[in-house]
Amino acid sequence: MEKTLTLEALARMVEGEISGDPTLEISGFGSLDSAGPGDISFLVNVKYLDQAAQSGASAFLVAKDVDLEVDNVVRVDDAYLASAIIQNYFLKRPFRTGGIHETAVIGGGCRIGKEITIGAKVVIGDRAAIGEQVEISAGAVIGADVVIGDGCTIRPNVTIEQGCELGERVIIHAGTVIGSDGYGYATDKRGFHVKRPQLGTVRIGDDVEIGANCCVDRATFGVTWIKSGTKIDNLVQVAHNVVVGENSLLVAQVGLSGSTTLGRNVFLGGQAGTVGHLTIGDGTMVAGKSAVHGDQPAGARLAGVPAIDGKQWFKSVTAFSRLPELMKDVRKLKKELARLVEQDESITKEG
Amino acid sequence: MEKTLTLEALARMVEGEISGDPTLEISGFGSLDSAGPGDISFLVNVKYLDQAAQSGASAFLVAKDVDLEVDNVVRVDDAYLASAIIQNYFLKRPFRTGGIHETAVIGGGCRIGKEITIGAKVVIGDRAAIGEQVEISAGAVIGADVVIGDGCTIRPNVTIEQGCELGERVIIHAGTVIGSDGYGYATDKRGFHVKRPQLGTVRIGDDVEIGANCCVDRATFGVTWIKSGTKIDNLVQVAHNVVVGENSLLVAQVGLSGSTTLGRNVFLGGQAGTVGHLTIGDGTMVAGKSAVHGDQPAGARLAGVPAIDGKQWFKSVTAFSRLPELMKDVRKLKKELARLVEQDESITKEG
Amino acid sequence: MEKTLTLEALARMVEGEISGDPTLEISGFGSLDSAGPGDISFLVNVKYLDQAAQSGASAFLVAKDVDLEVDNVVRVDDAYLASAIIQNYFLKRPFRTGGIHETAVIGGGCRIGKEITIGAKVVIGDRAAIGEQVEISAGAVIGADVVIGDGCTIRPNVTIEQGCELGERVIIHAGTVIGSDGYGYATDKRGFHVKRPQLGTVRIGDDVEIGANCCVDRATFGVTWIKSGTKIDNLVQVAHNVVVGENSLLVAQVGLSGSTTLGRNVFLGGQAGTVGHLTIGDGTMVAGKSAVHGDQPAGARLAGVPAIDGKQWFKSVTAFSRLPELMKDVRKLKKELARLVEQDESITKEG
Repeated sequence: MEKTLTLEALARMVEGEISGDPTLEISGFGSLDSAGPGDISFLVNVKYLDQAAQSGASAFLVAKDVDLEVDNVVRVDDAYLASAIIQNYFLKRPFRTGGIHETAVIGGGCRIGKEITIGAKVVIGDRAAIGEQVEISAGAVIGADVVIGDGCTIRPNVTIEQGCELGERVIIHAGTVIGSDGYGYATDKRGFHVKRPQLGTVRIGDDVEIGANCCVDRATFGVTWIKSGTKIDNLVQVAHNVVVGENSLLVAQVGLSGSTTLGRNVFLGGQAGTVGHLTIGDGTMVAGKSAVHGDQPAGARLAGVPAIDGKQWFKSVTAFSRLPELMKDVRKLKKELARLVEQDESITKEG
Repeated sequence: MEKTLTLEALARMVEGEISGDPTLEISGFGSLDSAGPGDISFLVNVKYLDQAAQSGASAFLVAKDVDLEVDNVVRVDDAYLASAIIQNYFLKRPFRTGGIHETAVIGGGCRIGKEITIGAKVVIGDRAAIGEQVEISAGAVIGADVVIGDGCTIRPNVTIEQGCELGERVIIHAGTVIGSDGYGYATDKRGFHVKRPQLGTVRIGDDVEIGANCCVDRATFGVTWIKSGTKIDNLVQVAHNVVVGENSLLVAQVGLSGSTTLGRNVFLGGQAGTVGHLTIGDGTMVAGKSAVHGDQPAGARLAGVPAIDGKQWFKSVTAFSRLPELMKDVRKLKKELARLVEQDESITKEG
Repeated sequence: MEKTLTLEALARMVEGEISGDPTLEISGFGSLDSAGPGDISFLVNVKYLDQAAQSGASAFLVAKDVDLEVDNVVRVDDAYLASAIIQNYFLKRPFRTGGIHETAVIGGGCRIGKEITIGAKVVIGDRAAIGEQVEISAGAVIGADVVIGDGCTIRPNVTIEQGCELGERVIIHAGTVIGSDGYGYATDKRGFHVKRPQLGTVRIGDDVEIGANCCVDRATFGVTWIKSGTKIDNLVQVAHNVVVGENSLLVAQVGLSGSTTLGRNVFLGGQAGTVGHLTIGDGTMVAGKSAVHGDQPAGARLAGVPAIDGKQWFKSVTAFSRLPELMKDVRKLKKELARLVEQDESITKEG
């Protein structure tokens, strides 16, 4: 089961340049302090140069501009990225087919792959479709008509409500809820809130990862859609009819209000939020704790409540801490000016 | 099972005025693009007038001031509200009694209605009382002595801890926890925190809806109380001894600190919070992301951290983005004034 | 089973001074309005003096400076703390050993204490080690190789992922997830995010309490560590490689970013957050809703986004609400000064 790879093959995997022995056999990946003979390690920060020199690793992944004097080095554009690729290569194991645990409850008319692991106490509703190499962990509840693509991982106590669809290689961490009702009411004259039926579903693309205890609400009509490659941290709220573009990043405790549309590679920092019905362009980055109140062009850099241009916000927030001083200055200016005006008037009169 | 209603009966249901054929039979509700013959649809925004003209619907709900030229129209004050009422009418199905799943575990001395659906892997503690037409979904855990009124819906993996009481027609979405311990400690001289026992419970009124992965803590003594008609979005925190008045709205990720008392029809926007022991009057609206630091009269409109009058906040926040400019102005003024004072002094001296 | 204690023994327990009868037998603790004969109650606020006088309690815990004229009083430095200690004494019951519920699923090679209660539908992975007097409630999922120390309480539907370790007397409330993957990716040139394996675990010290629906991520390497005595409220996010020092308090909805290190007795108010890789000194207090952007010395008092000195923030935020006024003042000053300069110039010319 042990994997080995020559330094040359490994360098090809990460588009790197070798200095040293291309035929060197590498059999594992480790951090600078844990790596031993046969392992490759990585260096992302020059402040660890000494540690690298002391490391037991047989080879190193380093950025092209780093001057590490050891025998075997693979130079890459991005050592952090390269190390993730190599580490994943060495960690990847063939899918372990555990079958369906005897305590799992599977509904009628389900289509379930052959190579699957369905844990204890899992409940799967009628007509669900589960692909190959899917792992569903203990206590997860999968509603009727749910579709789960090949290679998905569903952690414990996750709930996926009726009719939601996951692409391939989706990872959903423990406690997350996919397909809860959207928050929609019409209020009558007495102030009572009449629930609007939430009839849509949730669609999740390929290679999406969703953290623990998140909520993704189903659409009122149509779908709430998280597109391929997007990665969501813990405790994130995605409201009904939101569309999140490809490869976006939503850090912990972000909240997206209803019908918000995010472009590709959008980044929202922790605890940031958006008001509803916005369109946020590709590649926009929003600082943590910010609140986006209006549509945003592609590539915007935003911060604040409401969010403004990040650089402008930084200047304003720096000024904010000097506000009391500023107020004093203005009070003083007012007094001095008043005195001056008085004086001038007397001069003018005298004049 | 197909429901039909004349346009006249339907108009009565929403206090609307008909233009067209009152005897027209309506058998369903659809959005403008999905509705077909026999359906009624609705129009809330004049920008969809063309789409309405193209729609296959046989009749339309429209606001009184909208000029929609089709054969059959019901004019109402609030087309959004009317459409929710009509849609609910057509969607409403008789309760489906599924009985108690064989894998559910029911404690001793429980009183459980006859028309109920208790899903797989549900666990119900001793002496719980479950009303009629209640649905408890897979994986939910209901503690001892819990009371659940008629018509309630408990979604998967919900936890309702010992002794909490739900009124009628309450909906609780997946993953939510009702009755966890309040966060209360007394700190000794060494800095250790001694847990204060949390001996109260949670009481939830009729027609309350609580979103997914929320937390409602039990009271230290007495009850944490969410009154009838209140609707709570996902990931909301309600601390011990909070009282939320009737028909209030708490949007996603709101946090209410301990012993906060909210009046009726209070609105808190997403990610807003309150400090503890506050009283917030009826109908108060708090913008998303705000933090309420003091008691509030009825009807307040608040925004900011700490929350101030919403209009004032809006002006201040607009000014905030111009703060760096303002600081420059003041610096310039100081210089100019200093120059002027100098000049004046020389004039005065000369004078 | 009824416990009794003389007033003297009780006073010793809280380092209090008795006035009254030291041999008086006390058999319970109650709030001012619920306490009856044989009970002790407590008074923390002089505004309840009248209520105390009317109370049926046989004795009272009061602060040393409170002038309560009743027969039996124990005077203490901190009546709130003393009441928590006494209340816990009277409430404490011997551990109720319920054994392992027949529907629980226990993996191979587990070491499980003799005095335990493992509820219905609990799933425990292979090689888990569960100490004595542990209660694991219905629906909880405990991963392989998890270690749970003596006296721990795990509430319903909690997930503890593979390899995480809990000390003694830890309480984890319903729905919380310990050991979900940290949020770590390396992004390639096409904007795809490559998952970094999260190979570490979570370590939780003694006497830690974690609220409902929280998330504590496992470390990338090593451990995410919550040290002894720390108390965490609901819906809190603790990212990978965070270290939280002893006896810290994290109020609801706090978010700690990756690799943040908190000292001892740090306090973070509700909805506060930290950016990653910070060090926050012992005893630092951060106001609710704040965002800490930089390292902090011990004993800091912080507020705002980004967090600044709390007093300074308070002044700035007060000024903030008067910003529009300030801008008007400055505009007026500019005009007046311009007028004055003009005048002066004419005077000078004339001069």
